[in-house]
Amino acid sequence: MTERLYLYDTTLRDGQQTQGVQFSTEEKHQIAEALDHLGVDYIEGGWPGANPTDSAFFAEAPKTKARFTAFGMTKRSGRSAENDEVLAGVLNAGTDSVCLVGKTHDFHVTTALGITLEENLENIAKSVAHLGAQGREALFDAEHFFDGYKANPDYAIACCKAAYEAGARWIVLCDTNGGALPGEVYQITLKVIEAGIPGENIGIHTHDDTGNAVANSLAAVNAGARQVQGTLNGLGERCGNANLTTLIPTFLLKEPYKSTLDTGVTDAALADMVKVSRMLDDILNRVPLRSAPYVGASAFAHKAGLHASAILKDPSTYEHVPPETVGNARIVPMSNQAGQSNLRKRLADMGLEVSEKQDLGRILDRIKQRETEGYSYDTAQASFELEARRELGLMPQFFEVERYRATVERRRDAKGKVIHLSEVTIVVNIGGERHLSVSEGIMADGNDGGPVNALSKALVKDLGPYQDLIGDMELVDFKVRITNGGTEAHTRVIIDHEDSQGRRWSTVGVSSNIIDASFEALLDAVLWKLMRDGAQALGAE
Amino acid sequence: MTERLYLYDTTLRDGQQTQGVQFSTEEKHQIAEALDHLGVDYIEGGWPGANPTDSAFFAEAPKTKARFTAFGMTKRSGRSAENDEVLAGVLNAGTDSVCLVGKTHDFHVTTALGITLEENLENIAKSVAHLGAQGREALFDAEHFFDGYKANPDYAIACCKAAYEAGARWIVLCDTNGGALPGEVYQITLKVIEAGIPGENIGIHTHDDTGNAVANSLAAVNAGARQVQGTLNGLGERCGNANLTTLIPTFLLKEPYKSTLDTGVTDAALADMVKVSRMLDDILNRVPLRSAPYVGASAFAHKAGLHASAILKDPSTYEHVPPETVGNARIVPMSNQAGQSNLRKRLADMGLEVSEKQDLGRILDRIKQRETEGYSYDTAQASFELEARRELGLMPQFFEVERYRATVERRRDAKGKVIHLSEVTIVVNIGGERHLSVSEGIMADGNDGGPVNALSKALVKDLGPYQDLIGDMELVDFKVRITNGGTEAHTRVIIDHEDSQGRRWSTVGVSSNIIDASFEALLDAVLWKLMRDGAQALGAE
Repeated sequence: MTERLYLYDTTLRDGQQTQGVQFSTEEKHQIAEALDHLGVDYIEGGWPGANPTDSAFFAEAPKTKARFTAFGMTKRSGRSAENDEVLAGVLNAGTDSVCLVGKTHDFHVTTALGITLEENLENIAKSVAHLGAQGREALFDAEHFFDGYKANPDYAIACCKAAYEAGARWIVLCDTNGGALPGEVYQITLKVIEAGIPGENIGIHTHDDTGNAVANSLAAVNAGARQVQGTLNGLGERCGNANLTTLIPTFLLKEPYKSTLDTGVTDAALADMVKVSRMLDDILNRVPLRSAPYVGASAFAHKAGLHASAILKDPSTYEHVPPETVGNARIVPMSNQAGQSNLRKRLADMGLEVSEKQDLGRILDRIKQRETEGYSYDTAQASFELEARRELGLMPQFFEVERYRATVERRRDAKGKVIHLSEVTIVVNIGGERHLSVSEGIMADGNDGGPVNALSKALVKDLGPYQDLIGDMELVDFKVRITNGGTEAHTRVIIDHEDSQGRRWSTVGVSSNIIDASFEALLDAVLWKLMRDGAQALGAE
Repeated sequence: MTERLYLYDTTLRDGQQTQGVQFSTEEKHQIAEALDHLGVDYIEGGWPGANPTDSAFFAEAPKTKARFTAFGMTKRSGRSAENDEVLAGVLNAGTDSVCLVGKTHDFHVTTALGITLEENLENIAKSVAHLGAQGREALFDAEHFFDGYKANPDYAIACCKAAYEAGARWIVLCDTNGGALPGEVYQITLKVIEAGIPGENIGIHTHDDTGNAVANSLAAVNAGARQVQGTLNGLGERCGNANLTTLIPTFLLKEPYKSTLDTGVTDAALADMVKVSRMLDDILNRVPLRSAPYVGASAFAHKAGLHASAILKDPSTYEHVPPETVGNARIVPMSNQAGQSNLRKRLADMGLEVSEKQDLGRILDRIKQRETEGYSYDTAQASFELEARRELGLMPQFFEVERYRATVERRRDAKGKVIHLSEVTIVVNIGGERHLSVSEGIMADGNDGGPVNALSKALVKDLGPYQDLIGDMELVDFKVRITNGGTEAHTRVIIDHEDSQGRRWSTVGVSSNIIDASFEALLDAVLWKLMRDGAQALGAE
């Protein structure tokens, strides 16, 4: 016997209150489509009339299975609901569902609105009744409800009851300032139910200011609330809203929710959770948070050696849910902590079967030594593979870089304009034959891309017999980290490449010289590609 | 009547399980010092004997007020505690406190360890007793405790009691896989207390795999646990550990904790929370998470118009705690009145009195424009000051850099050894007189320090009449961040300098060319110093 739990997404409204976030109308459509695919019950599209983007979006509202909802506020004092033009703007959007925020904290009623407590109750009741009269489903967002309840419980509940008795389908308890803690959310939600508003009419809207947005949502559901509001990736004002990307997997995969509650999200849709989360980051041009619950790239990464060896025996030893249920994947990275079993598995994944304990020990020692020098192989899998091969004597010698020289110059051109330009010359010996190349660091837009750009181009410009194999390499990411302070510190460079086969590989270089660290990572990238594609080792004489 | 709540930091051990994180010994010292300043009770330093970095750190352990703690595991079967060399390695570190992890989930005992349940109980008891016999305070990390309790409550509790009765000061209930939810953590912690282990001997160790690490910690404290384990910024395996940067403010500022519990953290230390959080991000070269509770740059940012206007009347309307209590600051959109007064204050702090609204607006526009190009003035105050002066026409021209050229070369020396060397030539025009300088990037240890090192030395080598003023400048930190992927991306360089007056200043440079971005930051550093010390502007003819 399960009960229905409703999911209400406010990414497009409260999510847009995130600092630095401003969705275009087209992006709003993309996000609404993804949410609908996921199977949420409500999609709050924004506040029609409040700004041009929101109005434009409602004017061409997406056709969703989810109830597409307009947000607004209760009517102001001194006019009827029918004559409040802000409320009219919201209703004009023509959505089936309308969510109106209203005050429930006595202090805010008298301080921020400057009206009497009675007037506020009337504004709530009249506004909700007006929605009903217009044939709309009404939701009431009880602003500052938990703070309000703590200050004046009778009044906070009276506000909710005014909305409920006026016909609101949902009374949404909002922790607007994000300061409530799970224990009190649970207790206060119980009080609301005791006061006569059934749990199946109660929603919860939380913020993450104490890191408890998810827990507060669960606490309200535990008390009986049956609608949860949140956003994708926890976007939202200040520290963000409750993260639906976290809550949805919890409701579907974890007890007691899994066997007592139903949502509109299917297991198939759940398996797209990582994809949906990344899509939003792409739209926002954000680096995805590696540590995000369920969907982060590190969520199923097992770095500790003890964990990694147990995982090999049975993944459930160190995983609370299977990664594939949310579309994620297990990662067993290399690191200082890694044990031999971790290492063996990683080598096997690369096609290197190493079973001798002695060989594993030597590779491990080499990797540990390199890590103390500043190398890091968590992500730089390709360089890791090359190091293992070098230690085992399995690394072919394709060519040798005899020398290179990088020059960066800044001066004024003939017209007196400051220009800078980078040039790299390189000499590569392939099977006894010397190949000289020179490149400038000119980018697509005509600007100087600097010495790393020039070096990258020079290195792959003429590798003679290998040219066909490396022609499709593309440098797609470049990261620099100084491992200690000062210019005398070591620099770690991590470079990602892709090729036409859709492979992506990472390499690492470390040096006190940033150019040389980059060179090392670039060289490893070429060597890995040649090795993986089975190039013939011509050596260097 | 308050009770003592103990804080146990594991940033240096479990925090280092974060993918991509590898602290150097020096960084571990820096972090331990910051934690000690904060006032945590325990600092777990790592696992002595498990890897060279941890061993080196314990060999020169920091002197802390906090109990400096070594981590390890209970003895293995088939040998005595006295003869277990892994355990001996941990004890050899000589710390007053030792924390040993042991299994409490029957499935793990039989599957992962492959021993009987009885043997495991004995391993726990004997290991803890051995610590006591050696005069150490013993902590027992009950691994997989909540999963273990759900599978076999009697056995899980028997493991904890074995450790407690053998003399462990703390029994730490670990949610190792991070899958437990707050309701069950609360209930199960109560059961442990009912079974005879007092709350004042119970600790809680949680992970964020369901986004509930903080809530689970609070749930255990609500049930009676009196030690909380966590990490700075929530570092840790997979999704991270409980975030002490979130929990500490909650314990100090929020009810019911504020008036019922005492920690070792003072209000003054709490006001450094943002600083400590940023320091860790600096060490990791990570972009600080804007939405982090309490310490994030957006934690007190009020974007919604209604919120911003209410905040001006009374900050408590939309803030659950005052931002300054944790060393944070309120942000309201720059365009409004408060934005301008903030800017005016920042300029006044630099000795620039700007009262004209028009001037403030122009500076704001210029800064915003630069920020869209990739500049960042959060830390680079010196460059910010120079930009404001440039906009107001108050920037003296001391000299002009006519040109520079940086060369990096890698080749074999006469003996066939690979060497790399960097050289920079620079031409500076001071009052019409040209000064030529050349420098190599040779470091104190004889290695090549690369082109940035050479550039830094060349720039300050001969500035003629200004030489006396810049002779005491020292480059103390250098950070590089790529603002977008690929070598064609922009590079942001932030450089810190110090001088003999004890001043420290930060400058920023942005370019597609990493050498030129560094040059820009280096040049700003020299200009700021000349301006602050009142150098005469000789110009360039």
